[in-house]
Amino acid sequence: MSGFWGNKLKISIFGESHGKGIGITVDGLESGFSVDFDEVQREMERRAPGRNSMSTARKEGDKVEIMSGYFNEKTTGTPLCGVIFNQDTKSKDYTTQQILMRPGHADYPGHLRYNGFNDYRGGGHFSGRITAPIVFAGAICKQLLQAKGIEVVSHIKAIGEVEDKQIDYCSIDIEEFKKAQSKEMAVLDDEALLKMKDKILEVKQQEDSIGGVIECAIIGVPGGVGNPFFDSVESTIAHLAFSVPAVKAIEFGKGFDITKLTGSKANDEYYYEGDVVKTNTNNNGGITGGITNGMPIIFRVGIKPTPSIYKEQDTINISTKTNDKLKIVGRHDPCIVQRAVPVIEAIAAIGIYDLIK
Amino acid sequence: MSGFWGNKLKISIFGESHGKGIGITVDGLESGFSVDFDEVQREMERRAPGRNSMSTARKEGDKVEIMSGYFNEKTTGTPLCGVIFNQDTKSKDYTTQQILMRPGHADYPGHLRYNGFNDYRGGGHFSGRITAPIVFAGAICKQLLQAKGIEVVSHIKAIGEVEDKQIDYCSIDIEEFKKAQSKEMAVLDDEALLKMKDKILEVKQQEDSIGGVIECAIIGVPGGVGNPFFDSVESTIAHLAFSVPAVKAIEFGKGFDITKLTGSKANDEYYYEGDVVKTNTNNNGGITGGITNGMPIIFRVGIKPTPSIYKEQDTINISTKTNDKLKIVGRHDPCIVQRAVPVIEAIAAIGIYDLIK
Amino acid sequence: MSGFWGNKLKISIFGESHGKGIGITVDGLESGFSVDFDEVQREMERRAPGRNSMSTARKEGDKVEIMSGYFNEKTTGTPLCGVIFNQDTKSKDYTTQQILMRPGHADYPGHLRYNGFNDYRGGGHFSGRITAPIVFAGAICKQLLQAKGIEVVSHIKAIGEVEDKQIDYCSIDIEEFKKAQSKEMAVLDDEALLKMKDKILEVKQQEDSIGGVIECAIIGVPGGVGNPFFDSVESTIAHLAFSVPAVKAIEFGKGFDITKLTGSKANDEYYYEGDVVKTNTNNNGGITGGITNGMPIIFRVGIKPTPSIYKEQDTINISTKTNDKLKIVGRHDPCIVQRAVPVIEAIAAIGIYDLIK
Amino acid sequence: MSGFWGNKLKISIFGESHGKGIGITVDGLESGFSVDFDEVQREMERRAPGRNSMSTARKEGDKVEIMSGYFNEKTTGTPLCGVIFNQDTKSKDYTTQQILMRPGHADYPGHLRYNGFNDYRGGGHFSGRITAPIVFAGAICKQLLQAKGIEVVSHIKAIGEVEDKQIDYCSIDIEEFKKAQSKEMAVLDDEALLKMKDKILEVKQQEDSIGGVIECAIIGVPGGVGNPFFDSVESTIAHLAFSVPAVKAIEFGKGFDITKLTGSKANDEYYYEGDVVKTNTNNNGGITGGITNGMPIIFRVGIKPTPSIYKEQDTINISTKTNDKLKIVGRHDPCIVQRAVPVIEAIAAIGIYDLIK
Repeated sequence: MSGFWGNKLKISIFGESHGKGIGITVDGLESGFSVDFDEVQREMERRAPGRNSMSTARKEGDKVEIMSGYFNEKTTGTPLCGVIFNQDTKSKDYTTQQILMRPGHADYPGHLRYNGFNDYRGGGHFSGRITAPIVFAGAICKQLLQAKGIEVVSHIKAIGEVEDKQIDYCSIDIEEFKKAQSKEMAVLDDEALLKMKDKILEVKQQEDSIGGVIECAIIGVPGGVGNPFFDSVESTIAHLAFSVPAVKAIEFGKGFDITKLTGSKANDEYYYEGDVVKTNTNNNGGITGGITNGMPIIFRVGIKPTPSIYKEQDTINISTKTNDKLKIVGRHDPCIVQRAVPVIEAIAAIGIYDLIK
Repeated sequence: MSGFWGNKLKISIFGESHGKGIGITVDGLESGFSVDFDEVQREMERRAPGRNSMSTARKEGDKVEIMSGYFNEKTTGTPLCGVIFNQDTKSKDYTTQQILMRPGHADYPGHLRYNGFNDYRGGGHFSGRITAPIVFAGAICKQLLQAKGIEVVSHIKAIGEVEDKQIDYCSIDIEEFKKAQSKEMAVLDDEALLKMKDKILEVKQQEDSIGGVIECAIIGVPGGVGNPFFDSVESTIAHLAFSVPAVKAIEFGKGFDITKLTGSKANDEYYYEGDVVKTNTNNNGGITGGITNGMPIIFRVGIKPTPSIYKEQDTINISTKTNDKLKIVGRHDPCIVQRAVPVIEAIAAIGIYDLIK
Repeated sequence: MSGFWGNKLKISIFGESHGKGIGITVDGLESGFSVDFDEVQREMERRAPGRNSMSTARKEGDKVEIMSGYFNEKTTGTPLCGVIFNQDTKSKDYTTQQILMRPGHADYPGHLRYNGFNDYRGGGHFSGRITAPIVFAGAICKQLLQAKGIEVVSHIKAIGEVEDKQIDYCSIDIEEFKKAQSKEMAVLDDEALLKMKDKILEVKQQEDSIGGVIECAIIGVPGGVGNPFFDSVESTIAHLAFSVPAVKAIEFGKGFDITKLTGSKANDEYYYEGDVVKTNTNNNGGITGGITNGMPIIFRVGIKPTPSIYKEQDTINISTKTNDKLKIVGRHDPCIVQRAVPVIEAIAAIGIYDLIK
Repeated sequence: MSGFWGNKLKISIFGESHGKGIGITVDGLESGFSVDFDEVQREMERRAPGRNSMSTARKEGDKVEIMSGYFNEKTTGTPLCGVIFNQDTKSKDYTTQQILMRPGHADYPGHLRYNGFNDYRGGGHFSGRITAPIVFAGAICKQLLQAKGIEVVSHIKAIGEVEDKQIDYCSIDIEEFKKAQSKEMAVLDDEALLKMKDKILEVKQQEDSIGGVIECAIIGVPGGVGNPFFDSVESTIAHLAFSVPAVKAIEFGKGFDITKLTGSKANDEYYYEGDVVKTNTNNNGGITGGITNGMPIIFRVGIKPTPSIYKEQDTINISTKTNDKLKIVGRHDPCIVQRAVPVIEAIAAIGIYDLIK
């Protein structure tokens, strides 16, 4: 099933890029919690299009209307539904999108999956725009987690080959991350930021696009959260991460690089710091056996380059059943990574809230 | 919940390394299917310990007894349960395992998660041994998929820094993979195999261990399988992959490397080969928008080095609440990657069967 | 979890009686189906308040706005969300509802469940009004089932002690049921209808209320639908039926009366009518072993009298923690049974569509 | 899916009447709980066949072997699996069961559901014998609930037309119920018991069978347990109850009879008894709006007469596709109600434990 997820917290999403609206229903929230909706809106704006030269010109306020589940300025505990009505949907001829399958997009698989009946306008239900409701739900979960002393932060680890600074997995500087949030892009190192921006503007000028890596840290989760096997912390976060369009890879702790270490280097050795159990390295990213050990949870996701590019591409015409050429017009991002940052934080918060509840 | 998974196919696992037995219940199998149990047993043996100098000396036949769901040599369609009774459980003093937390293992997180009541003998329910029932269920799913023209194959892509040959994502040579299965390790290139073996024996001699990467290909899945968002093909396979102990990373298609490409290079352009839609590259690993496009599904998982090593390690003693030293004795693998190969194929088969059913 | 249900079809509801809006997201619908929304609206109106002297004076058009999942006059197959914006929500002082717990209502249990944070205005999320979105989803499922030759019909079997005619479980006259739908109440026998109406107006005059029984038949479901044990047809329908406020009982076929028969009378003996397998009685209501046998599915639900009555009642004041008196003012139905008829048909359609998909 | 159930507690069953064994895996139990297995075994024996003149002569010790999840005499918190190996499976010719469909049984629906591949010997997976593992899991849940001050008790409310005494829904005499458990049948009134026994022996002599009603009370559940709509207490218990073979009806509180009352009689008025909230009647069976109010939960299930009778019956021969006659031979119960009592208590305990966890 595509749009439903969850165990103790449940979410269901709906909507298409150019339909009437998009939204999410969240069930299982605790009652009596005061949401800071200004903060929620700030999270929405981190994802929203049209913020600077590096993203699409489409402008959407992404203002969420609360339909239910919030009363007297507190969560009721019954289903909370938020809806975003689509505004800036340019009316135009979508015939091309119906018959010329954009490479790297869901057009062709979606066409097969739904026998040609899916909404093809702007990607329809497959649009990255549907991540806006996920950011909304995630923003609420982030606040719920903060009330329990848990922070979710992230930075752009890489744009193409350009890398941000290496963070210390054992000791996350939350303030440094928060400071980065207010920059043009969520990058810790300012020099790296400039290089990344250059890279994005370079590919933009080439009518092309570029991908990148987002690194996320969840700090303050106590040890003992998660499960062996099918609902491991990694399974939960990875399941949600791969729900985000354009994510093609995920790794925890040192990830693929841990495979090159010997066990004596890879194992995170425990020690007591006073009463608190810590590990002297955090190659496992705070999780062993699918369960947290109290150290920061660290993971990275790989985001592919925006498939929408202005350059002409080869593709198929499913109407004529012939090979064809495609030049995508319209508004799109040369790089989606910076806008995906709050989405990745959102799914991290949703996943951890479900596990911890 | 730890031990239950699935939508249209459901599985539930149970068991501990040194308990009475381990097993799996599989519900939602089609009725009337003749399982080749000799083939199932061969899959079990690919995972079983004690096969050569590179794995633990523990010997388990891993003979599965069918409790239900199979009648007159065909699946009934009602729950099929397979049990493996534990045999070679050396009785010994497990006190050390109770108080000295093995680094890299689930001992400490498991202790927290279950308030100290989990079975600590040999890792208990966290033992890699519990993957045997998963291989059993996966072996049945593989046969069910084969009957639909779908093959699941894999090879060891890397042990430490040693890499196997690069495969062609667009055109998988199934026979080459099957041939590799009968080798000492599932490696395509014989020279790479020797180097990998050398590496494993080297770390073994150093009382250490090493990790690696398994690359899996699923061929023959028609386009249109999977879902947008929460039950994407990637979400389904990743969820199951991270249920396998020691997996710390997964990537589809070019994975993390796709983030370094420009969109014009990353996008897999479509073309008609006769009536069949293909892509000229397969950087997305056969999946866009969470749904298959008909090309081979390609993914890689990173397996960390076996955390059990003979070398002395620092750790904590949770009884005395002091820092301590630990030298792990007993039998264990210097590298678990080769034994994880059939497990990864099993979860791939289980995931795809659930999606395709 | 309160608001989520389903396996192959999934639904999630949201909303409160006096909030901004109520709605439902439906996932797993087949793509390419043209919904007759006029027919959907007729179903909505069967449930809507304010239709005649026997129901509440509250008027709601219950006009559903389609947010997503419907494109070019066909289902897309992706989540379909329908929203009803609340209109006729009289602004008034709800203080009484907050502190004086209405007997027979969810006020007090809801207060406990949500620690006092639930929306108490008009019952909030517990309002029978939230069944409107269920009728909407059910109306679509009914049309999907009709396209497969399956009809869902029902009648008011009883209001208080007044009973409608006995139907033939083996042979349902669909036309007779459809004719009854257009009557003031869905009663097959006109004399019974008049007596029922008299009964309702009598209790209304007494500032009291009355309950009743709805009998539902599902015709055309082939044999072999359903499951043994946990997802039996009865389990599925009963689960959904008890989701409907005021339902306190359900029985299939002869129900409780079958317990008084001997096996030789109770057993439905099979016979071939040409190639078709039938039973000469249908005491089991078309289901044995949790699975359909091809005969009409028959079930009855018992609906309790509307708990909202004008008569003064004893209750508690949770603010002063003292015993108190309550006289409920405002608009309410002396009998809810006639408005529950389309709700019961809706859950029957939803349940069967999920099982049959 | 047939054999899997649960949210916070999950169970999966497997097995056939004449297969190797039957069993259940239970996941989500709290860790560190000492199960009284003698008490569990007593529950198993309450259900077991062959206890007296009123039940089948088949003898099964129904001894459960614990495969996992129990260590050092405490639950580990990881999946607990219990297996019962079948012993007294008379080897005989089952050809008749394959082609002559027993009326009232699952033979024919099961044949359709599984395309003829289901195990037909003794009903296979549809056998009432598969309720033994459910009693096992329920017995553990009962003990877990007892530790929280919650008792699950029940009595045979009726065999055919013979009724046991009316209980006081507001005040359950647990000792009276426990005393009844040690009687030949769980009946409160001794005279009623004798009449019921006479009735059963009478139908037995007539080569026939009879049904009955079981009434169950759950005492000590605090108010505020359950959910509005889809996971109401009634939905949860009803779902599980209809998983039990032969159950055809369920009602809560006054059930169908509440439909005949006026609201002023039906509503359970609240009052404070000291600090404790009570109701002066309990017509709603302790549940309003799907959530408990702190009063005893009361429900009744209707059990149909055993479909296996010695009397000759009309039926179909699916091999010749002709109408035929059937005389069932072998061992079977003239009344299953008394053996179903612990099964109903088990599902009540499982359902409440899941909701309360």
